[in-house]
Amino acid sequence: MLTITLKGGDSIQVEKNTSVESICKDISMGLFRAACAARVNGKVVDLRTTLTEDASLEILTFDDPDGKWAYRHTASHILAQAVLRLFPQTKLAIGPAIDNGFYYDFDAQEPFTAEDLEKIEAEMKKIIKENLPLEAFELPLDEAKKLMADQPYKLELMEEHAGKGEAIKFYKQGEFTDLCAGPHLMSTGCVKAYKLTSCTGAYWRGNEKNKMLQRIYGTAFSKKEELTAYLEQLEEAKKRDHNKLGRELELFTTSEVIGQGLPIMLPKGARVIQLLQRFVEDEEQKRGWQLTKTPFMAKSDLYKISGHWDHYQDGMFIFGDPQKSDEEEVYALRPMTCPFQYQAYLNRARSYRDLPLRYNETSTLFRNEASGEMHGLIRVRQFTISEGHLMCRPDQLEEEFKNCLELAIFMLKTLGLYEDVTYRFSQWDPEDTEKYIGTKEQWDEAQGSMQRILEHLQIPYSIGIGEAAFYGPKLDIQIKNVHGKEDTLITIHIDQMLAKNFGMEYVDSDGSKKNPYIIHRTSIGCYERTLALLIEKYAGAFPLWLAPEQIRVMPISEKQADEAAALAKKLFDHGIRCEADLRNEKIGYKIREAQMQKVPYMIILGDKEIADGVLAVRSRKEGDLGTMDYDTFFQKIDEEIATKALP
Amino acid sequence: MLTITLKGGDSIQVEKNTSVESICKDISMGLFRAACAARVNGKVVDLRTTLTEDASLEILTFDDPDGKWAYRHTASHILAQAVLRLFPQTKLAIGPAIDNGFYYDFDAQEPFTAEDLEKIEAEMKKIIKENLPLEAFELPLDEAKKLMADQPYKLELMEEHAGKGEAIKFYKQGEFTDLCAGPHLMSTGCVKAYKLTSCTGAYWRGNEKNKMLQRIYGTAFSKKEELTAYLEQLEEAKKRDHNKLGRELELFTTSEVIGQGLPIMLPKGARVIQLLQRFVEDEEQKRGWQLTKTPFMAKSDLYKISGHWDHYQDGMFIFGDPQKSDEEEVYALRPMTCPFQYQAYLNRARSYRDLPLRYNETSTLFRNEASGEMHGLIRVRQFTISEGHLMCRPDQLEEEFKNCLELAIFMLKTLGLYEDVTYRFSQWDPEDTEKYIGTKEQWDEAQGSMQRILEHLQIPYSIGIGEAAFYGPKLDIQIKNVHGKEDTLITIHIDQMLAKNFGMEYVDSDGSKKNPYIIHRTSIGCYERTLALLIEKYAGAFPLWLAPEQIRVMPISEKQADEAAALAKKLFDHGIRCEADLRNEKIGYKIREAQMQKVPYMIILGDKEIADGVLAVRSRKEGDLGTMDYDTFFQKIDEEIATKALP
Repeated sequence: MLTITLKGGDSIQVEKNTSVESICKDISMGLFRAACAARVNGKVVDLRTTLTEDASLEILTFDDPDGKWAYRHTASHILAQAVLRLFPQTKLAIGPAIDNGFYYDFDAQEPFTAEDLEKIEAEMKKIIKENLPLEAFELPLDEAKKLMADQPYKLELMEEHAGKGEAIKFYKQGEFTDLCAGPHLMSTGCVKAYKLTSCTGAYWRGNEKNKMLQRIYGTAFSKKEELTAYLEQLEEAKKRDHNKLGRELELFTTSEVIGQGLPIMLPKGARVIQLLQRFVEDEEQKRGWQLTKTPFMAKSDLYKISGHWDHYQDGMFIFGDPQKSDEEEVYALRPMTCPFQYQAYLNRARSYRDLPLRYNETSTLFRNEASGEMHGLIRVRQFTISEGHLMCRPDQLEEEFKNCLELAIFMLKTLGLYEDVTYRFSQWDPEDTEKYIGTKEQWDEAQGSMQRILEHLQIPYSIGIGEAAFYGPKLDIQIKNVHGKEDTLITIHIDQMLAKNFGMEYVDSDGSKKNPYIIHRTSIGCYERTLALLIEKYAGAFPLWLAPEQIRVMPISEKQADEAAALAKKLFDHGIRCEADLRNEKIGYKIREAQMQKVPYMIILGDKEIADGVLAVRSRKEGDLGTMDYDTFFQKIDEEIATKALP
Repeated sequence: MLTITLKGGDSIQVEKNTSVESICKDISMGLFRAACAARVNGKVVDLRTTLTEDASLEILTFDDPDGKWAYRHTASHILAQAVLRLFPQTKLAIGPAIDNGFYYDFDAQEPFTAEDLEKIEAEMKKIIKENLPLEAFELPLDEAKKLMADQPYKLELMEEHAGKGEAIKFYKQGEFTDLCAGPHLMSTGCVKAYKLTSCTGAYWRGNEKNKMLQRIYGTAFSKKEELTAYLEQLEEAKKRDHNKLGRELELFTTSEVIGQGLPIMLPKGARVIQLLQRFVEDEEQKRGWQLTKTPFMAKSDLYKISGHWDHYQDGMFIFGDPQKSDEEEVYALRPMTCPFQYQAYLNRARSYRDLPLRYNETSTLFRNEASGEMHGLIRVRQFTISEGHLMCRPDQLEEEFKNCLELAIFMLKTLGLYEDVTYRFSQWDPEDTEKYIGTKEQWDEAQGSMQRILEHLQIPYSIGIGEAAFYGPKLDIQIKNVHGKEDTLITIHIDQMLAKNFGMEYVDSDGSKKNPYIIHRTSIGCYERTLALLIEKYAGAFPLWLAPEQIRVMPISEKQADEAAALAKKLFDHGIRCEADLRNEKIGYKIREAQMQKVPYMIILGDKEIADGVLAVRSRKEGDLGTMDYDTFFQKIDEEIATKALP
C-alpha cells in the first residue's frame, strides 16, 4: 500500500499502481469532473498517471494555472485534429498553450480565411462531441519517424529530442496523433467552451529566415460565461488598442517611406506629449532637478568609457565602421542619456556641499531594433523619455532614492495609472557575467543597498534575475497594456560603478576625493509609451487637462455662427484649447462626431442660450448637463484642469 | 596727350606714361598723403602705375575698401620683413589683407610667443621709420626660382602661376622681396597705425593633411584713434563672444569625448532654451499653428522623394551603405523637417476648406559637417529649430507669407534683435542648375511670386544669387555676430515643387485635385544660434523673463539665513527662478559674484529689513534700488516678466 498525502494535509492509503484518475474519482466525482491535471511530488502530470510510491498529490482544476495549461493544450490538439480533417495536406508545426489561450502553427496550402476558421470551429465541436479519449505512449526514434513520416516539422523536432536523449512521446485521440509531452485532459469531451480568435503569419521557430507558417490563435475556458466575458474583454481591448484608436483619433500615424518604429505625432498627439513634458519638467524643477539638454550623438570614445561600446553596441545606430573607431571619428546615436549628463557634472570641480546634484532632461534616445519587433508607440526606434541622473553621497542614497520613487508615484497617481503597476527588483544574472560591468562584490554591494532601501521603504516587489542594466540593479515599475502584456514603464537604478569610469569626483568634508553614487531614473518613462497607456486606459478620452481639444462650440444653425466663433475665441483667450464647428451640418451629427473624437465638453449654442446669456453644456461622459452661466462653467473647467481631475 | 576722367566727372590732360602718383600729387598733396591705391578703368592698381591711354581714374584712400586692402596688405609685408629680420630661418607662406586686418602664415622653427609678437611689432616700427620705398617687378620663372630658392612655399606658388600662364610678380622693400601681385602703398612709411592681435595654427592651404603653420594676425589703420577704437571694440567683442562668455556663465560646455559641434547645454543654458521654446510654441499656437513631433530619421526612400538624397547626401548622417539603399533599409538622420511634416498632411484627404494648414515643430536637425568648421553654438552638427511648414492655396500665398514674416518680426522685436537684421532675397544660380530641382520656368515663377510679395510688403532686401534652397527661393533674415560675421537667423521659403513630388493634394472648390503651395519657415531660427546671439547682444545679462536665475537672496550674515531661505521659497512659489546664497561669506563678495553671474536682481536681507518688513533690492544694471515693500517689488518684477521688457 502507498501513502498519498493530499493538498489539505490528509493522507490516504492506496494500492501500488493506482491511477490519479481513480483516486480523484474516489475523493469526489465533482472534483473529477473539474480536474484537468495533477501535481505529484511537485511535478505536473496527467490524471492517467499511475502511482508507484508514496507521494504528495494535488488535483489541478481549470482555476490552477497548470490545470488551465493542460486544458488549453488539449484544445490546441482538437484544433489540429479538426484542421487535418478539413485540410488533410496541412503539415503540423507546434501548438502550445499560452497566456489567455493557445495557438497552433500550420504549414497550410493557403492562408486560413475567416470562413475556414468557422468551419474549423464547427469540426472541433464534432470532435468534442465524439468525446475521444486521449492516450499517451512512447516510441523509439525509428518507429516514431515511420509514424510521422509525412510531417516534416515533427520529424525535425523528434530528431532533436532524440539527440538530447529525451523520450519521444505521443498523444493520440481518435485518428489523430501528435508528438507531445503532455499533460492532457482525459478526453476531448472535457473541453467545454472554446473560440478561435485570429489567424496570423508566424515564422517556423520565430526565425524570419524560415518558412512563414499560419498560426491560428484560440482560447478555451471551463465555463461558457467565462469565455463570453473574456471575448467581451478582448473586444474592448481591441477597441482601446492604442495602435488602432490612436490612429483613428489622429494622435499619431506612421509612414512606409519613413520606416517602422518611427511614429509621426500628429497635432493632437504632439499636444498631449507637449503637455506631459511641461508638466514633468515643471514638477521636477519644483523638486530641485536642474534641466540639461545634451547632444543625441557622440564619438565612440564616450561609449567606450561608459561600457555601451562593449555591452550595447548591437542596440546602437553607428555612423561609420565600428572596427575603425580607434583610428577615426566614429559617431553613434545615444541609447541612454547617462554618459551625456555626466559631462555636465564634470564641467567643474564639485564638493560634498554641492551634492546631491539632480539633473533631469527631456531626452530623446535611439535603439537599433529589428523591424519585426516594432509596434505602435510601444516598440519604437526613437523615443523621448523623462530621464534624470542624480549624483549623491552614500549617506544621501536612501533619501534620494525615496524621493525619486515618490516623484514616480506622484506622476502615476496624477495620470491615474498608480493602481495598475507592480514593482520588480531587477538583478544581474551571476551565471552570465559577460553581460555586465563590475565584479561580483560590486554587484552584491549595489544589490544589497537596493534591497535594504526597498525593504525599508516597504515596497512589495518581485525579483527579476538577469533584468538589471549592465551597470547596476533597477527597481522597475511594471504595467500591463490592454492586451495583458507587461512592460516596464518607469525604472530607478542604483549605480556604484560608472562615476569611477568617468572620473566623476567630489571633495568630501575631510578633503579626500570620492566618487559619487549615481541614481539613474525616469519619472514618467517614455512619453510615447505613456501616451499609448493613456490611450488604452481612457479609451482615448483623456483627462480634461491633457485633452488635445478641450471644448467644442457648436451653433445649432448658421444663424449663431458669429456668436459661436466669438465664444470659441473667448475660451481660447482664457487658455482653453477650443474649436468651433461652424459647418452647415445637423447638430446631432456634430455632437456624434465630437463624441467620437472624445472632446470632453461640447457647448451647443441656440438663440435661446444667446438671449438668456447662458451656455448649454454637454459632457462626453455624462451627456447633457443643462444650461449654466458663463462664470459657473469657467469655474467648473478651470478647477477640473487645475486639479488634473481624472475622468 | 591723354584725357583722364576723374571721379567727380572733371577731366584733365596728361602726357602719355604719366604715373598715377604724379597726377595725384598734382590734384592735391593732401590727397596724395591719404592715397593708398587707384582705380583705373575700374581696375584697382598701384599709384606707381603709368597711364598709356585715355582712362577714368579714381584715387582710393583708406576709406575705400580697396584702398584699405592695399594699406593692410603692405602692413602684412612689413610683418613678414620683420619676422625674417628676427627669425631668418622662417619660411614664408602667404600674407593677404582680410576683413578687419591682415595675416601672414609662417613656417617657423617655433610657435611665436606673446613676447615674440612684441619684438616683431617693434621691428615693424623700425621698418616703417626706415620708410623703405616698395618696388614692383616681374621675372621669368627660372630667375624667379633662383630668387626664391630658399622659400619652398613661394616656389610651389610660382610653379602654379607659371602653369596658368600668369606673370610672376614681386614687390621689394629694402632687403625684403615677396612674391605678390599687389597693389601696395608707395613706401613702408605710409603705414601709420598697426597692431598684431594674435597667433594661431593654420594648415598650409587650409588642408589638414598639410603642415601646420603659424599664422600671425594683425590690423592696421590710417589713424591711431581708429586703431584704438577698433582694439577696444575687439576687446569688447572678445568679452561678449558667446563661445567664451557662454562657458564662463555655465550656459553650455563641450566635451572632447562627445565630439565637436555637439554642445552640452548646462542647466542655465537649457533653461533659457526651454523658456524660448515654450514662448515660441505658445505664440505659434495663438497664431493658428498646429504642433507636430516627427521622427529624427527615415529610410532613404523619403529623401529620394524630397530630393535630399541627390542634393544633400553629403550633409547627412547615414547608417549603412548609401550605395545599397535600393536593396536594403538605409536610414539617415534628417537635415531638414520638411518631408517629415508632409506625412502629417498626407494622413488624410484635404479639401480647399482645410487650407491653410500650418504645422509647427520644435525640431532637431543634424548636419554632417567637417570638424574644422565647428564653432561654439553657431556651427554645430545637431541643432533645434522652430520649424514650420504651411500648405496653402495660391490665393492665400501672399497673406500667409506676410503672416510668417510678421511672426518672425514679432520674435525679433521681443528678443531685441529687430534693429540688427537685414533681409536677403536668396535666389537660385541659373549657371549651376545641378544644385537644384525644378526647371527654369518653375524657378522663374517661384522667384517672381516672391519678388512681387516682397515688393508689395515693401521689404528692403539685397539679392543672394546661388543662396536659395535646392527646392525654392528664400527670404533670409541676416544678422551679424559680435565679430561682424554675418549669418542667417531666420528664413522663409516659397516652394512650388515638393508638394507634387510627395503627392500632396487638396480637392479644390471645383472638385479638381491640386497641389498646395508650401511655405517653409522658421520663426526664431535655431535655438542654439539664437542663444549665442542673445549672449553676445546682452553680454550674458539676459532680459528678466529669460534669465536662468532671476533673483538671488543674500542674508548679510548667518543670522538672517532662515528668513533668506523662506523668502527664496516664497519667490520660488510665486514662479520666480530664485536662489538663496547662504554661504558664510562677506556680503560684498556675494554681491560681486551675483553681479558677475549677471543675476538681474539681488535682495540683501539684514536685521533692519526683516524688522521693517521691506526688501533691500539691488539691480545688476542700476545698482542699489533702495528698499521697497514686498507688494511693490513683486509688482515690479511681475510686470517686467509679463511684458518681456528688454534690459
